[in-house]
Amino acid sequence: MLKLRTIVVDHTRSPFLKEGESFYLKRLRRYVKMEWIEVKPARIKKGRSDKEILATESRRIDQKLAPGDYLVPLHSTGHSFNSEELAKWLDGLSARTGICVTFLIGGPLGLSKDLLDRGHEILSLSRLTLTHEMARLLLLEQLYRAFTILRVEKYHK
Amino acid sequence: MLKLRTIVVDHTRSPFLKEGESFYLKRLRRYVKMEWIEVKPARIKKGRSDKEILATESRRIDQKLAPGDYLVPLHSTGHSFNSEELAKWLDGLSARTGICVTFLIGGPLGLSKDLLDRGHEILSLSRLTLTHEMARLLLLEQLYRAFTILRVEKYHK
Repeated sequence: MLKLRTIVVDHTRSPFLKEGESFYLKRLRRYVKMEWIEVKPARIKKGRSDKEILATESRRIDQKLAPGDYLVPLHSTGHSFNSEELAKWLDGLSARTGICVTFLIGGPLGLSKDLLDRGHEILSLSRLTLTHEMARLLLLEQLYRAFTILRVEKYHK
Repeated sequence: MLKLRTIVVDHTRSPFLKEGESFYLKRLRRYVKMEWIEVKPARIKKGRSDKEILATESRRIDQKLAPGDYLVPLHSTGHSFNSEELAKWLDGLSARTGICVTFLIGGPLGLSKDLLDRGHEILSLSRLTLTHEMARLLLLEQLYRAFTILRVEKYHK
């Protein structure tokens, strides 16, 4: 049975996006096991470069990964599915035994090149640059939508 | 000076998306005049087909249009900008005198073929099918982002 995991940096600070996240996470969990992991953001100190912050956050994400995870970092230049293609892709992965599809969403600075390079699939939700918090909401909504497509339910048009 | 207008079907029913909409609308209006028009959704009656509902809603949108509007219907198969391209496109339009860039977002059934055909530009926020309410939030966030890009402000990365 398919297992999903999402690893994000920091908790969601926008109250309305936090609420949306809970809403879709609850709906999605009717269909599939989804683990949600928030790693601590790097502290911003004087003299600390963006590169150092990114390296710290990506290391914290890395520590949460398990061998055999199917890594799916999110990036605007990644693979753009339409909703039906996304559903089909998930369906294909669910045929593989013991797989955990692990979505990675960075903080405001994104993800390190190393994590992007290690992705089995880089997923783009849009060519537009989304805030990392908006990306979380959209990912959850689309995963939920994918399961309604696979179950031929009413939600998706 | 550039003027924007958005015409949508129905008010936003999801509380958290409604909150997000107000949040970004307020921010966007620091930069540009944005008119927000909600037309009434068609009543769902027994025996009324999707096609009839769509025609009614698109007619109501049509009644709100003014001659000379630069029409931008939203559809997942339209033109996908990245955030910098979207900003540049808006900047280009702002050079045209007296133009009102009018974004159209349908209800759950979308927009009529007629309205799509009359678009000067069909805008795609994502290849993924978004709920019409999510599309509103994403459009506002991206328009706000576009103005921060044009003003070289801190928000966009």
